[in-house]
Amino acid sequence: MFPFSQRSIELQKRVRDFMTESVMPNESVYFAQQRELADRWDSPQVMEELKAKARAEGLWNLFLPESHLGAGLTNLEYAPLCELMGRSYIGPEVFNCAAPDTGNIEILERYGSEEHKARWLQPLLDGTIRSAFSMTEPDVASSDATNISLSAVRDGGDYVLNGRKWWTSGAGDNRTTLLIVMAKTNPEAARHAQHSMILVPKDAPGVTLVRSLKVFGYEHTPYGHFEIDYKNVRVPAANVLLGEGRGFEIAQGRLGPGRIHHCMRMIGVAERGLEAMIARARQRVAFGKPLSEQGMVQEAIAMSRIEIDQARLLTLHAAHMMDTVGNKAARSEIAQIKVVAPNMAFRVLDRAIQVHGGAGVCQDTGLAAAWTFARAVRLTDGPDEVHLRTVAKLELRRELPEKPW
Amino acid sequence: MFPFSQRSIELQKRVRDFMTESVMPNESVYFAQQRELADRWDSPQVMEELKAKARAEGLWNLFLPESHLGAGLTNLEYAPLCELMGRSYIGPEVFNCAAPDTGNIEILERYGSEEHKARWLQPLLDGTIRSAFSMTEPDVASSDATNISLSAVRDGGDYVLNGRKWWTSGAGDNRTTLLIVMAKTNPEAARHAQHSMILVPKDAPGVTLVRSLKVFGYEHTPYGHFEIDYKNVRVPAANVLLGEGRGFEIAQGRLGPGRIHHCMRMIGVAERGLEAMIARARQRVAFGKPLSEQGMVQEAIAMSRIEIDQARLLTLHAAHMMDTVGNKAARSEIAQIKVVAPNMAFRVLDRAIQVHGGAGVCQDTGLAAAWTFARAVRLTDGPDEVHLRTVAKLELRRELPEKPW
Amino acid sequence: MFPFSQRSIELQKRVRDFMTESVMPNESVYFAQQRELADRWDSPQVMEELKAKARAEGLWNLFLPESHLGAGLTNLEYAPLCELMGRSYIGPEVFNCAAPDTGNIEILERYGSEEHKARWLQPLLDGTIRSAFSMTEPDVASSDATNISLSAVRDGGDYVLNGRKWWTSGAGDNRTTLLIVMAKTNPEAARHAQHSMILVPKDAPGVTLVRSLKVFGYEHTPYGHFEIDYKNVRVPAANVLLGEGRGFEIAQGRLGPGRIHHCMRMIGVAERGLEAMIARARQRVAFGKPLSEQGMVQEAIAMSRIEIDQARLLTLHAAHMMDTVGNKAARSEIAQIKVVAPNMAFRVLDRAIQVHGGAGVCQDTGLAAAWTFARAVRLTDGPDEVHLRTVAKLELRRELPEKPW
Amino acid sequence: MFPFSQRSIELQKRVRDFMTESVMPNESVYFAQQRELADRWDSPQVMEELKAKARAEGLWNLFLPESHLGAGLTNLEYAPLCELMGRSYIGPEVFNCAAPDTGNIEILERYGSEEHKARWLQPLLDGTIRSAFSMTEPDVASSDATNISLSAVRDGGDYVLNGRKWWTSGAGDNRTTLLIVMAKTNPEAARHAQHSMILVPKDAPGVTLVRSLKVFGYEHTPYGHFEIDYKNVRVPAANVLLGEGRGFEIAQGRLGPGRIHHCMRMIGVAERGLEAMIARARQRVAFGKPLSEQGMVQEAIAMSRIEIDQARLLTLHAAHMMDTVGNKAARSEIAQIKVVAPNMAFRVLDRAIQVHGGAGVCQDTGLAAAWTFARAVRLTDGPDEVHLRTVAKLELRRELPEKPW
Repeated sequence: MFPFSQRSIELQKRVRDFMTESVMPNESVYFAQQRELADRWDSPQVMEELKAKARAEGLWNLFLPESHLGAGLTNLEYAPLCELMGRSYIGPEVFNCAAPDTGNIEILERYGSEEHKARWLQPLLDGTIRSAFSMTEPDVASSDATNISLSAVRDGGDYVLNGRKWWTSGAGDNRTTLLIVMAKTNPEAARHAQHSMILVPKDAPGVTLVRSLKVFGYEHTPYGHFEIDYKNVRVPAANVLLGEGRGFEIAQGRLGPGRIHHCMRMIGVAERGLEAMIARARQRVAFGKPLSEQGMVQEAIAMSRIEIDQARLLTLHAAHMMDTVGNKAARSEIAQIKVVAPNMAFRVLDRAIQVHGGAGVCQDTGLAAAWTFARAVRLTDGPDEVHLRTVAKLELRRELPEKPW
Repeated sequence: MFPFSQRSIELQKRVRDFMTESVMPNESVYFAQQRELADRWDSPQVMEELKAKARAEGLWNLFLPESHLGAGLTNLEYAPLCELMGRSYIGPEVFNCAAPDTGNIEILERYGSEEHKARWLQPLLDGTIRSAFSMTEPDVASSDATNISLSAVRDGGDYVLNGRKWWTSGAGDNRTTLLIVMAKTNPEAARHAQHSMILVPKDAPGVTLVRSLKVFGYEHTPYGHFEIDYKNVRVPAANVLLGEGRGFEIAQGRLGPGRIHHCMRMIGVAERGLEAMIARARQRVAFGKPLSEQGMVQEAIAMSRIEIDQARLLTLHAAHMMDTVGNKAARSEIAQIKVVAPNMAFRVLDRAIQVHGGAGVCQDTGLAAAWTFARAVRLTDGPDEVHLRTVAKLELRRELPEKPW
Repeated sequence: MFPFSQRSIELQKRVRDFMTESVMPNESVYFAQQRELADRWDSPQVMEELKAKARAEGLWNLFLPESHLGAGLTNLEYAPLCELMGRSYIGPEVFNCAAPDTGNIEILERYGSEEHKARWLQPLLDGTIRSAFSMTEPDVASSDATNISLSAVRDGGDYVLNGRKWWTSGAGDNRTTLLIVMAKTNPEAARHAQHSMILVPKDAPGVTLVRSLKVFGYEHTPYGHFEIDYKNVRVPAANVLLGEGRGFEIAQGRLGPGRIHHCMRMIGVAERGLEAMIARARQRVAFGKPLSEQGMVQEAIAMSRIEIDQARLLTLHAAHMMDTVGNKAARSEIAQIKVVAPNMAFRVLDRAIQVHGGAGVCQDTGLAAAWTFARAVRLTDGPDEVHLRTVAKLELRRELPEKPW
Repeated sequence: MFPFSQRSIELQKRVRDFMTESVMPNESVYFAQQRELADRWDSPQVMEELKAKARAEGLWNLFLPESHLGAGLTNLEYAPLCELMGRSYIGPEVFNCAAPDTGNIEILERYGSEEHKARWLQPLLDGTIRSAFSMTEPDVASSDATNISLSAVRDGGDYVLNGRKWWTSGAGDNRTTLLIVMAKTNPEAARHAQHSMILVPKDAPGVTLVRSLKVFGYEHTPYGHFEIDYKNVRVPAANVLLGEGRGFEIAQGRLGPGRIHHCMRMIGVAERGLEAMIARARQRVAFGKPLSEQGMVQEAIAMSRIEIDQARLLTLHAAHMMDTVGNKAARSEIAQIKVVAPNMAFRVLDRAIQVHGGAGVCQDTGLAAAWTFARAVRLTDGPDEVHLRTVAKLELRRELPEKPW
């Protein structure tokens, strides 16, 4: 395994213990409270209790790199922590390390004005509000981000936004007050200088949450994925981050860490799926012997172990590259892991479901929800095909011996 | 393609037209009505209208073989009709050809008394009531059916049932009045003579629908999959079908056609998924050209075509074998197709989702629901592993040349 | 299974018996004689004896359709015979049904002059000479056949050929006297009218067999795959088949049946591989029990059975389509099976090798040779990728409902 | 990437340069000289020249750990060197790092007497003789090594060996003088204490090289894989290494490093395959554009990059575990990589072949030979299934939370 710093090792122990002692036993509490809520876009009370506890123990905002506001961990140091949090659906939020807040916090910390920081960054760091990232559009292939078409037109000291987004994750949460919107401001500019990133208050006039999109039947409340209509939404020009036409630049910086965080969580959830598979295989008997002694089940277990370990190593490798050569130079590694991790988690969870039989597809375990989520992550931040294309194109540029074979 | 009878060909055209003209355009009506229902276990009104229309056109109970009550089609003749119905979530019910009623009707027709037929068979054939099949149990690996443990004890002229079932599909429907229960009546008998199949009215005292099991977040209303508690449920001894200890015999006969019907529907749904994939690929543009011109998408389309055609041929082959050598002699073919069809449909639908991006995972198409359903069918009536074992064991018994190579 | 004609069923029995009684027991004789040959491009004596016997029994030239010279079988009737022959490396030649003679005979029968027929067709039908097909070129991607560049220039009553071919299979055989060459005669014509097919005697001045190409270490003697230099090779203008510029037309007609014959043989060889796998699994013991009782081996056996049956059904379906709608309309089916069959045989043989351990990779069985051959067939007559592209393009042209889902 | 020591980094550069400047350009020389040899079990002259050069540069015996006789590198330090050597069929021998000598040298260094060291170890370290390892037997499943049955019976001061081995790799080489034989000496002892490892001079009376086993048509000359008959072969009792009944103990120690060296080489050969694939894709045009712009080829390239990197990381991880916790504690990691590396190399080389078309299957590149070799390595030192079983069994023993999900 990659050699971790002493600090990371110590934090791993603390996060692991916190997960075991405080998070896991409260999952059922969380879901029970959720079923009792009058408004499904509210957050169960136990979450606030857990957050307070994690914060009190200093396990808070661990993701934020290169800033006195966060823990100052490298990607490599943070990776195993993020994996541990990812074992539970409610884990990341407990530590204030949940997407899309993590990416949004990073953007605000780097590019926000003092006013932005006071209004949004500080409450986000405190975990008192949440935020959303509004980029994908229903009418264009958004994996090719130059297609983004929601328009923002300068009008005096304001920008006026018109257009439609969807898959704005987190928008449903009643605690969410900020939408970061990718908009086309300079349609005549060069391909990668046409877009800007704009801060839009969720309650701005003209912002309408049209509907909640389900992910294979799951709504991911209180978080949610929304289709949003922006109709003559007016925000001050100062709400454009970094400057007009620099949306791509910010998006690129934002997506790298976001992708790898997703991958780390995928590894955590796969590891938990394997544990569930093993436990079930040891306990269940069919055709006269435990599943654990049946060859096809052993194969499922072994392949899962092998695939998890390979994916974890590739994730750590990518994190290390981001730390040492930067996100841009590490873009093949990031693209690689974005393909590997969700596909791996999907396969491992699929095997765990198969070993569980009917118990695996219903609400009796977290397997079903995790499996559908892993499937969806194969599309989040670009489908596999786009990342494979990126990897291939970088390989094709390599310098090679004249006649390799 | 296998040569179909003139009758089957003519029915294929009529079912296809009915699907196109009456079923497909009413899917959205069905779901809209469903959202308005006060009780989600009620059936939308449009379903009764469609059923009446199908029945009026003679497209009714087409599945029932070897009986003057049904259409008298062979499995091979019925296969393409079942495939067509399976293209829509609501298709099979429209034609009164939905599981588990089809299997239950067959059992009642063969083994029911006159009283059973009057009370349950006729209304089932008329589509005025529905039924459920209560076999799987939460505490044992039910794929090895000898594990079934719900007990039924003779007490005077009655049997008294005690135990717990789950995955009793169709039990939720308010129209359902009959549960066919697999129970252990003769624990001392030989392994395959311990169980009996017993007719239990859904409203019998002691029957409690404990909870609705979701399938990857979907409840499949108004149908449902239920955990049911049977506590001192008393039914007349005459409700034992065919005789004490003959439950296995009935189950075997029931599961063969049931499995192949599932497979036929899987082919229909996969075919529709491919159509959706093609339509999307033609329309969507990314990186400067339509998806339809991109190699990885072409590969997805071609592989889907190839896998669907192979699965259909194997299904027709299995149907033909069942028709000509019987379900018992065709058990390898049935096991084979039970592995092939849901896995194939799952892969095809997965590719269709991938080509659709975010639109594929949400409620905007039927892809997400169909994909999760195909996954679940890999477990219905036994997991893949059990069927592979069956196929292998039959192969291993073959006579071989002394030194094959 | 597809209903076979009485004639096909009767021939299946006779070919099967001949294979069992005469061909299989003589494989080792053939290879032993081969090792003793002074010239490896000679054919072992036992082959001529077997051919004489097969001919005497009327099992001869069974492939040739629509001609009084052959058996007059449809593709569907011939398919199971070809499969049976394909079980042995030496099978097809014994029945005078080996590639590339089959395709060449068909061409000569349709397009050859009386002189061509007397000189080449009759001896080929008699099995006294053999032939080769010289199409692929080393310097261009020949899967896109418009790239073919060997030039043939009219000079008085002759054509003069200059260029280089490779993978001219069968050219090595000392019995081969005819090369059918695809040449560019009309570089200025439309894309598919530039090439002609020309009969070239193997001993024509200017024809040089440059070298024998090995297929994964195997030379496939006495057959061979050759790189051939054509330098100022002069043949009479009458040797152009069908007419200048019509090479493509002939090639298309030739490749359809050729491809499907390959596929039928692949199914035969896979079936034999499965038999060997089963026999080995029954006999070999590891970790205290026979391999046949170990889950991973059972899975290998079951998946092989399933994949073979699906591939056979798809092959028969394609044959049936060729018989009923013609090779052109069946080109998706032909492309599909060209992808499916060799990949399937490759996987089945791979599993058989795995179950055999060291015995599977060495010369002790035919598995190693058959496995490498199946791999090569994934490239013969076009790589998988080209056929997938064909299938996709035909799917993409389909008429679809406006909104399929 | 794992942090390498300065020494390893410096050696990587030197080995890489040596490979580029001296080994790669001499591959064709080696094979040309080989074709001219009168005895194919002789070694081409250029090999001795390259060995002398490598030794002169200090790139010699780099594999040997924990000994003043070797370079004293850890497994992690050696891994990237071994990978680089593995890029060429002739690479490992040039640096005196070829199997099975590496494992045999290690055994002799640890357990050999002074006399053994003088007679065999020193010449092996000098590269003047070679050796073989004679373990696998034709009649038993040797992957379960307790099956090994060749008998060695004490007779006075000698042991007398009787039995048959096969797959004794390296036995063919005319330079080979030593066979290390696994023999059953104590049939009555406990299961893992029945066998001993015995040094047998290749020229001892009674040793007969029965035949050369081909690997998919390749003989791997001058090395070779032999079936060997041991008939009343008499050796002094001192030739038993470490002591009677301790064969297993030695074998376990020997196989760990042996397996991982194989894996490192597999990664090297896969990396070279990818380079060849890229070079070909850039140069070859079909259907109007370079293969490098075609989606399916891009997918092949990207997947290869991803799989290589994952396999390399897993190999380095296993090496690191062996270095830090020991071979026994790292046996899951060793088993994992033994499954991953050859399968990965096989797939990568398979894709490279596919992109090369006919050029990939013949002798024009090293792809065909490397691909068949990678396939064989899936069986070397135990088939995949045995290693998967090992991984599963270790997982199944893990301590788990009471209810993991």
